[in-house]
Amino acid sequence: MPELFLSPRVRSTPFSPGVRAAAPKALTVYNHMRLACVFESPEADCAHLKKHVQVWDVAAQRQVEVTGPDACRLVQWMTPRDIVRVSVGACAYVPVCDDSGGMLNDPVAMRLDVNHWWLSLADSDVLLYAKGLAIGAGMDVSVREPDVSPLAVQGPKAEDLVARVFGDAIRDIRFFRFAICRFNGEDHIVARSGWSKQGGFEIYVEGRHNGMPVFNALMEAGGDLNVRVGCPNGIERLESGLLSYGCDITREHTPYQAGLGAYCHPETVECIGREALLREAAVGPSRQVRCLDIGGAPVPQLTDFWPVTGDGGGIGRISSAAWSPEFRTNVAIGMIDRSHWKGGTEVEIHAPDGVRTARIREAFHR
Amino acid sequence: MPELFLSPRVRSTPFSPGVRAAAPKALTVYNHMRLACVFESPEADCAHLKKHVQVWDVAAQRQVEVTGPDACRLVQWMTPRDIVRVSVGACAYVPVCDDSGGMLNDPVAMRLDVNHWWLSLADSDVLLYAKGLAIGAGMDVSVREPDVSPLAVQGPKAEDLVARVFGDAIRDIRFFRFAICRFNGEDHIVARSGWSKQGGFEIYVEGRHNGMPVFNALMEAGGDLNVRVGCPNGIERLESGLLSYGCDITREHTPYQAGLGAYCHPETVECIGREALLREAAVGPSRQVRCLDIGGAPVPQLTDFWPVTGDGGGIGRISSAAWSPEFRTNVAIGMIDRSHWKGGTEVEIHAPDGVRTARIREAFHR
Repeated sequence: MPELFLSPRVRSTPFSPGVRAAAPKALTVYNHMRLACVFESPEADCAHLKKHVQVWDVAAQRQVEVTGPDACRLVQWMTPRDIVRVSVGACAYVPVCDDSGGMLNDPVAMRLDVNHWWLSLADSDVLLYAKGLAIGAGMDVSVREPDVSPLAVQGPKAEDLVARVFGDAIRDIRFFRFAICRFNGEDHIVARSGWSKQGGFEIYVEGRHNGMPVFNALMEAGGDLNVRVGCPNGIERLESGLLSYGCDITREHTPYQAGLGAYCHPETVECIGREALLREAAVGPSRQVRCLDIGGAPVPQLTDFWPVTGDGGGIGRISSAAWSPEFRTNVAIGMIDRSHWKGGTEVEIHAPDGVRTARIREAFHR
Repeated sequence: MPELFLSPRVRSTPFSPGVRAAAPKALTVYNHMRLACVFESPEADCAHLKKHVQVWDVAAQRQVEVTGPDACRLVQWMTPRDIVRVSVGACAYVPVCDDSGGMLNDPVAMRLDVNHWWLSLADSDVLLYAKGLAIGAGMDVSVREPDVSPLAVQGPKAEDLVARVFGDAIRDIRFFRFAICRFNGEDHIVARSGWSKQGGFEIYVEGRHNGMPVFNALMEAGGDLNVRVGCPNGIERLESGLLSYGCDITREHTPYQAGLGAYCHPETVECIGREALLREAAVGPSRQVRCLDIGGAPVPQLTDFWPVTGDGGGIGRISSAAWSPEFRTNVAIGMIDRSHWKGGTEVEIHAPDGVRTARIREAFHR
């Protein structure tokens, strides 16, 4: 594989010195920023994550901060999820849609105060969408990217590690809630969240100068916990059914097609794409994200979509796939036509190394 | 350097099979898409570009298509450049600004028809900005990313090569103008433009299925011209003063700071950021892009900004730098405070391998 050419356009993060010292084997670019993908190997990184604790530089989850009298109006306009129900101190997974109901991002929204929101982004410039909407509609609101960089602590020992650095109060934070915690005399938001199902926290480190001090404090406090520098793991997230925006779901897909219907309330909220979403909700989506088990030996790295056929015709595509050592199968995510959703249905996957049989699952592995 | 981890989120292009066969040594990600950066070496790629002809996969220059009755109103709102002066068949370099005058992109706008525009983007999701503005202001306009992928043909033999594939009529296309040319019975826009000063064209290949046929036709027709698969070259563009958005200029900079005052007409046009731009135009920018020659041996690869000091204080940063074999110096671009703009001024560059002396130039090398 070719190397990633580094330049300031592919932004470094406040934690980059720590990541560089841990010598990642592969990086990607996410929101114009560096994001590690592999340290030892996807399999070894996955096994370690499930047993111990890892510190992840996920600064690439950039924040869009929305403040001001019209903040709630703007955030509500951007998502079909009813944000009135999101209280201060809570996180909410909010699909962001355009006027055809197509998904522009799937951020976690955090309500810091009544009129103060952060959207913790997947990989697209929602900052520009929010600015455009606010300018276009003449809203009384401020939209900016603050100097905030999330650092995730994930794995079964994450709570113990974070408690050592931020205090035992973090143990009381419930899932998808956050608290304000002090480090070196400065406040940071600590949320019980993260892109794995191994449990853990995301520390929203405020101020670039605080990046390496927080990173180093966690690494130093975790020696006996076998802490490692890690990164979002492609195997674990597939087993767990965590979607990757831009890959498993794109602008061409609606929240219903992404399987996020539970987070959509177009009947009751005034959001962009409302009419399109109501129409689709009435008849149901024609295609949807599905978990599949792909037979045969471990699949090669998926670098582009793999076509899926069933009953002699094209019925979708595989967007992510990897061998799972835990479940002894190739776990995959695909966008599949409604005709072939039923659990147990057999379909064919056209991988670069040949055609394989796969089976639609009723649910993800974890 | 770590490798680039490939997934469908880092989109392949219609020309990816051709690029892969030419075995690039380094890639980057640009508009969520793969973009090669190095084939043989930056120096060897540069020397070949200046002597022969190269075919570049620049599909990552994604298009934002704006059509409909309000198309001109939307495009004009996005840029301080007076687009009334841009005729059908012409290209125009248009800074795109937010309400504080900060640059969100620096695309080339092409006017395909009176109410039909393409913005050929640098690296940011202007699609989302345009959608937001159109939705917010309730404009009667369609905004989308069409299935169009630019393929650049650059170098002194570019005209001969493009003429062999698209016909001699392309010789009459003037700089920053375009014509509609046929290939295999389908129309494509061919513009005399490109991100080098070696001369050449950009072919806006319409339809993914046409990608490799056009690519292969150019490579096959250019055997005796010593054609190679290439990519935008970091040395040549620095010698030529071609700015890289996200690197040399960012959201934090205005068009005046980017040295693009000649493309700004806030006195006469109704654009976003007008008040901020008028204020800055009145007093002049406090900092601006400058060309510098950095002394000493060839500089290491610049992966993050290098601080610049002068007269004992911080006066800016270097955003791009490379050794130029042609000009026998390190050529660089920096954002420099007004106090140190004068040609010949000596400043200090704080590179990772030590402090060097640099000299501000009055103009770029080419």
